[in-house]
Amino acid sequence: MSANVPTDIRFSFAGLARRGGETGPHADGWGISFYEGRTTRSFHEPEPSSRSQLARLLRDMPIKSCIVLGHVRRANRGRVSLENTHPFSRELWGRRWTFAHNGQLKGVKRLELGAFTPIGTTDSEYAFCWMLGRLQTRFRTLPRPATLDRAVADLCAELHGLGVFNMLMSDSRTLYAHCGKRLCYLTRRAPFGKATLIDEDWTIDFARETGPNDVVTVVATQALTRDEHWTVVERGDMLTLREGEVEVLRGSNASADAT
Amino acid sequence: MSANVPTDIRFSFAGLARRGGETGPHADGWGISFYEGRTTRSFHEPEPSSRSQLARLLRDMPIKSCIVLGHVRRANRGRVSLENTHPFSRELWGRRWTFAHNGQLKGVKRLELGAFTPIGTTDSEYAFCWMLGRLQTRFRTLPRPATLDRAVADLCAELHGLGVFNMLMSDSRTLYAHCGKRLCYLTRRAPFGKATLIDEDWTIDFARETGPNDVVTVVATQALTRDEHWTVVERGDMLTLREGEVEVLRGSNASADAT
Repeated sequence: MSANVPTDIRFSFAGLARRGGETGPHADGWGISFYEGRTTRSFHEPEPSSRSQLARLLRDMPIKSCIVLGHVRRANRGRVSLENTHPFSRELWGRRWTFAHNGQLKGVKRLELGAFTPIGTTDSEYAFCWMLGRLQTRFRTLPRPATLDRAVADLCAELHGLGVFNMLMSDSRTLYAHCGKRLCYLTRRAPFGKATLIDEDWTIDFARETGPNDVVTVVATQALTRDEHWTVVERGDMLTLREGEVEVLRGSNASADAT
Repeated sequence: MSANVPTDIRFSFAGLARRGGETGPHADGWGISFYEGRTTRSFHEPEPSSRSQLARLLRDMPIKSCIVLGHVRRANRGRVSLENTHPFSRELWGRRWTFAHNGQLKGVKRLELGAFTPIGTTDSEYAFCWMLGRLQTRFRTLPRPATLDRAVADLCAELHGLGVFNMLMSDSRTLYAHCGKRLCYLTRRAPFGKATLIDEDWTIDFARETGPNDVVTVVATQALTRDEHWTVVERGDMLTLREGEVEVLRGSNASADAT
């Protein structure tokens, strides 16, 4: 989620949490990071979110944030453990970066790392460490948004060449979302309407929950609501989200697919 | 806490959490990190632990761990915010390091940093980043415990010279505790007895909760229980704790005090 005002994500999280072992097969851990300033409140468990006491508490706690990253895991590379539970996080340029990924990346561990070292054994965390190492080598301090966007998109394009790189990443300012296989998004702004979760019997009237100037975008692998229009992202494209507004950076692979 | 078997800390945490704004004045945030492998489950809030819904859940959730670091904050340098809430954490050598501190360090921000940059504005996080930068420069990979212990003790001694450096730090293998002003510890092992919290009306019979070979050490600024013998640490000394066993590294300042 990316929003222009601190927004609580209880509605979307309720849907996602059920996919963690109940309405979906992603029962090998879950995690969520809520940005607050340049750091996050983060919660991780290597157990199914659908049966978690902590996830239940978060469904009830209105933590408000402008950027939230959530993930439910279905393990392929790397055993089920806390160390392998997304979102991963590292500090770079005095900001906490977070990263979540679905997919497999063939040969990613042959890429040379910089100063960031994986704690666990997933392809995903390795890819994250590689990306941050490259960014740190290239820029001494946080670059301007457009410059960083381009650099991140280039790194995504390299990883996209190795397999499935469905990814969310944030530096506390921008939320990056790369479509490796399947990704969609939805922007809510006035006039607000109602929405019903696909994974749970919950309808919300956003007109009652939001202010007239709120802009909130939700990105997900699969649509979370049944009665709203979700935009499908092309494979190889990357989204940049700032204050709820979405920009699409076309990937070279996406163009290649289209020919 | 340091233990030789995964141990839950609900009893001690109940006492600590009340000091965060109820039986103590440390109402400006709280945090706790439970090690699991080379990473942690961490929880932080910039609000008083004594009134926290999340802290209440953790009092009930039996998270078992061999190393736990907890902190309740009374702000002096750095405003009340999530960014300034201990324990701070960073990855070094593929392990998550955590750090919590009480005290003030005059002129610490004049020390030159390495590759780790503070996210918030506290003296504490600055000192942590400085320590990790120095360790990273000196050792390419995780050194043997005795070598690392000595290096950490030397860095502690430098910081101790700047003010009050009451500190806990861990690399997932060892728990370091430095006494800047006030610190005490207690090792529980067979035969186990009963203990009663100072801050809450709770008596526990450890004979019922533990196995015969368990060794569990708790370190705190002030004793948490009223009916056990807590050992007071000398100013300038540093403890290393591994699997519940304590070793004392005498600091040069401590010797100076004693003359």
